[in-house]
Formats: sequence, C-alpha cells, structure tokens
Amino acid sequence: MKVRTESGVSDLRAVWFDNGKVMMIDQRELPHKVVITGFDDYRKVAEAIRNMTTRGAPSIGAAAAYGMCLASLSGIDLDLASKEIKAARPTANDLFFAVDHMCSLLMKGSDPIEAADGYADMIVSKCTKIGEHGSKLIRDGMKIMTHCNAGALATVDVGTALAPIRKAWADGKRFFVYASETRPRLQGMQLTAWELGQEGIDHAIIPDGASAYYMEKGVDLIITGADRITSNGDFANKIGTYDKAITAKHFGIPFYVAAPISTFDFNTKTGRDIEIEQRSEKEVTEVYGMSIAPAGSPALNPAFDVTPAELVTGFITEKGMFCPKDIRKVMNNE
Amino acid sequence: MKVRTESGVSDLRAVWFDNGKVMMIDQRELPHKVVITGFDDYRKVAEAIRNMTTRGAPSIGAAAAYGMCLASLSGIDLDLASKEIKAARPTANDLFFAVDHMCSLLMKGSDPIEAADGYADMIVSKCTKIGEHGSKLIRDGMKIMTHCNAGALATVDVGTALAPIRKAWADGKRFFVYASETRPRLQGMQLTAWELGQEGIDHAIIPDGASAYYMEKGVDLIITGADRITSNGDFANKIGTYDKAITAKHFGIPFYVAAPISTFDFNTKTGRDIEIEQRSEKEVTEVYGMSIAPAGSPALNPAFDVTPAELVTGFITEKGMFCPKDIRKVMNNE
Repeated sequence: MKVRTESGVSDLRAVWFDNGKVMMIDQRELPHKVVITGFDDYRKVAEAIRNMTTRGAPSIGAAAAYGMCLASLSGIDLDLASKEIKAARPTANDLFFAVDHMCSLLMKGSDPIEAADGYADMIVSKCTKIGEHGSKLIRDGMKIMTHCNAGALATVDVGTALAPIRKAWADGKRFFVYASETRPRLQGMQLTAWELGQEGIDHAIIPDGASAYYMEKGVDLIITGADRITSNGDFANKIGTYDKAITAKHFGIPFYVAAPISTFDFNTKTGRDIEIEQRSEKEVTEVYGMSIAPAGSPALNPAFDVTPAELVTGFITEKGMFCPKDIRKVMNNE
Repeated sequence: MKVRTESGVSDLRAVWFDNGKVMMIDQRELPHKVVITGFDDYRKVAEAIRNMTTRGAPSIGAAAAYGMCLASLSGIDLDLASKEIKAARPTANDLFFAVDHMCSLLMKGSDPIEAADGYADMIVSKCTKIGEHGSKLIRDGMKIMTHCNAGALATVDVGTALAPIRKAWADGKRFFVYASETRPRLQGMQLTAWELGQEGIDHAIIPDGASAYYMEKGVDLIITGADRITSNGDFANKIGTYDKAITAKHFGIPFYVAAPISTFDFNTKTGRDIEIEQRSEKEVTEVYGMSIAPAGSPALNPAFDVTPAELVTGFITEKGMFCPKDIRKVMNNE
C-alpha cells in the first residue's frame, strides 16, 4: 500500500521482515501519525499482537508467522514460542493457523524468513486476485460505498473490499468512494479513509446514517468485507453492514462481499448459527477515553451483524466472482 | 420533564419564567451536567438563543416569547427588541412566529408574562395531546426505537416523538426504548437517552448502524419526530431517519412520525422540493474539538434526509393519528 511519510511516498505492507526485525505500521497511531516500529524478539511481536499495534486477522497471522521466524532464528524452543504467540489474542483463527503452519515448515527444515515471507505473500496474492476479479465491476464515474475497513492494514497489503478499488484506480479508472465511518470504533473513518487518502483515491467520510441519503442520490456499487460466510451465503461482518445491505436492496444497488475462500465456513449452515460478540459499552459512550454519554444510560455494542444471502449480489474471491447460490458449485470444483 | 438534581427530582421545562427572569436548562452542558441559568435582560435571552443554551425550534420560540416579555416589562421599544431577538438564529421559523405573535398581543395590551406563558403552554398542550394519542400504540413489553431528539428539551416540555413514550410510561406501561445515537451530533445519545434516564424509562443507546440488528431481533414500534412534512406525506428529519424507515419496512415494523400540525407544510408538494442543509464537516471529523479523522479526508454532513410517505405508517398529531393518504382529509376538516 502507498504510505505518505515525510520522506515521500513509500510502498509498505502492514507487517514485513527487514534486517532481522519484524516491522509494523503501528495502527494505534493512525490516522494521525504514521509510526513504523521494529521488533527483534518474538515476545515483543506477541505483545504487539496483544496491544493491537497490528490488527485484522490476516495481518495478525502474518505477524505471528514472522514472530515464529524470529524465535527460530534465535534458537528458541518452537513449542514455547508457539504457546506464547498463540496466547496473544483469544479468538483470531489466523493466529493459530499461522503458528501451526510455521511450526510444520520449520520442523521440515524450511528457511525461517522464506517460510514467513511465503505466508505473508500467500495472503497478499489472494488479495491481489480478489482485486483483479472485483475491479471488473468498476467503471469510470461510478460512486462506490464501503463500510468498516477491509483494507491493506488488515490483510498485510491490498485488502479485500479495498482490493478491487485499489486495482481499478491503479488501472486508471476514476470514481468516488463513500467511506461509511463505522461507529462505534470508526474503522471506516480512521483506517479506510486513511488508506484511500494515501492512495490518492477520491473519497469522503459519511456518517453511517447518511447511507440512504447518498444511495438515493446514486450509488452504483457497494463492496464490504466479511468476517465469516456460512455455507448458505449468509455472512457476518461489522455492525452496520446489514443496514446497508437492506438499504441497497431497497434502491436496487448491487451489493458485493469481498473475501478469500478461507473466510467461507462450511461447518456452519446459516448465519443464525453465528454467535455475535457483544463488546464493551465504553466503545460507544467514550471517545479517546472521554465520556460522551449521560452517566446513567447503558449502551449496547454488538460487534457484528449477519446479513442474509438474499441481500448479496455476489462474492468476490481469489477464485473469481459468484452469487450465493453457486457457493457449493464453486467449492466442489476446488 | 423530570430532572434529577442534587436536591432531588424536579419537574422542569426547557424554558420558563420565574421571578422576573427567563430560566433555561443550559443544553450545552448536557448530558454531563444540569445547569439552570436565568436572564433578566432580553439581549441576554437573544444571546442564549444564538449560542444554543436552548435548542429545538419550539423551545427557541418560547425563549423568544419570554425575551419579548422581558423587553416589554423593561419598557424597551418592541420594534428594537423584535429585531434583535429575530437576528439570533437565521432559519428558525418558530423564532420569527413567536416574536410577531408576542408583538401583536402586547400591542393589544396583553399582560407580557401571561402572553409568553400562554405561548409556551400552547406548545406543551399540543405535545401533551400528541402523547395521549400516540401512547395508544404502546403496550406492555414492547421494544420501541427512536432516532435523534424530539423530546422535552426541544419543545419546552413533553416532546413530540418522546411524548407517547412519556405518557405510556406515566400510565404504568413498561417497555424498552432503543435510542439511536444519531451521528454526527449525537442528539440521540446526549439528549434523548438523557431525558429517558431522567424519567427512569428503560432504555439503551445503540450505534446508528445497529438498527437492523435490533429490528431483526424484534422491535415493535418506531417513532421519530419531523422537521417538515410536505403535503403528500414525505417528511424531512435528522439524517439517518430514512435508513431506519427503509429497514423498518424490510422487517414490517410500524413507523410513526410525531409532530404538531404546524410542522405540515402545504406549500411544499413533495419531499423532493425540500432543500437539505449541508453542515460543517467538522461535526463529523471532530469530537469536542479533537480530530478523530485522517487529516486529508473530506467528510460530508447532510443535516437531514427526506423519507417518502410510503414508508410512513402514520402521523401522530395533536388532532389524532392518521396515515399519509388522509393528510388532506384531516386538514380540510380543520
């Protein structure tokens, strides 16, 4: 991804390995400052995962892979390092997967740096393919809406929902992106709008409640990411996605979901089986530690909602685009 | 409205007259502090309207009426006072109406305090009737959603959208209210939730984007206010109202609009003829003067949206409840 620093425009990943160190863009400092930090100890990498220096399941996976790489280079016992790194975040499946993947390669004698770079490259390669497929949907002059952040920061580079947007812009297409701010944690405002700004892509932040207003005025395409897609095509994503999908249907606007095949969960039949994480009310009632709400009023903070398959026009994956009813067909050809 | 202070629970209005002073709840201090201020000079009242010590068109109207009352009691030239008070806010129709109404009564020799109290009482009386009619919709155990603040703070007392809720609760019905926070200015969180808390009404604040999530779980009734209702039943209200109305339709949830007859504008045929105020992007990108957005990203901030009549189940007015197609019939019986 493009990152504008004092020394000019750099092409950076969210996480990478350089000169014996695991490097990261410190996402806690965004969007106000671009801070790049390096870690030469796998325990510091585990801490960086825990304290959210890097965020987003694929980026966490890559950080974990590089953490295992550091441990291996320092001759640390891999079982010990595995346990410590896996304990950094409780629910990120990519974290466990990446650690186990690295263990298996390292025990086979793979080069630690090559193995970890390979893991990160694999993620970026899938995102790049999502971008190539999805960018076919984008034409000059379009107005595109997105929600939350499914960008390069979350996926090492390129992104999922932002991949088609990046690719189309790089191909010289010119269009406009509405980045829905995504309360309560403002990932749309603080991460997506930041990424779009770094790339020089025309965009504006809108309050989540301004979706119908702008869709009625003319939005041509909506693209979001997904946290989990069940076998019938229902999908969980950041709270507010369901509202946008309903509103898009009302106005007849195509609604696409960009995600790698690994996001499809065939062990879960429908979205009704997905349990929704309820997060702290303080994310709603405080901003930067300052209360913005009445003292006695409780707030509710479901982290995700589940949008049913019938509101999805299509999925954009590294294997191409298809509609919800064709999920099984695509997977069986795998 | 009930207001809980250190000395216990008081029954206050947003604006009133007491012992030679125009009294107001300082709405700029809410929801963190209850500050009550008094003004003994009509110019200070004009300043309090300008600096938004009191907000909401009907409350501004009442403040203006009491300002004229003060001017009259002090023997100030009414033309001079009229001009100064009318200049306090540029677009509030109630402000101009209240000043002219007071001038006409004062020139006929009415008692200044009685005239201004009469103006405020007239507003409260309409709201009380809206509450009586609308509370018939509310049954025990219901879940009700509202958006923005159409409460007592804005309308001297009782409110419009909150009037049926207050009345039903006072009648002993027990239910639950979702107060949608209403970005960017958070009137749902900071004013509606505050009012509900003061009354002891069960409620929770939700992010605007959590509407579909909770509607799917079961919302029985949605009530909002309106800024303007055109002759075909389209209505302008705070941004985010349109999204909720579309989502309510999707789930088959009744959507009611509470407003006095004076909000109906028969000079405007449809909502398409309403011009929408575009406000400063800083309301989106800053909280309490602190930037929360990337430096280079613009934000869009339409203050209102227009919901078409076909999404409205009914209007709740001081003359009773009726559906959009019956507007003309109701008005012609006037």
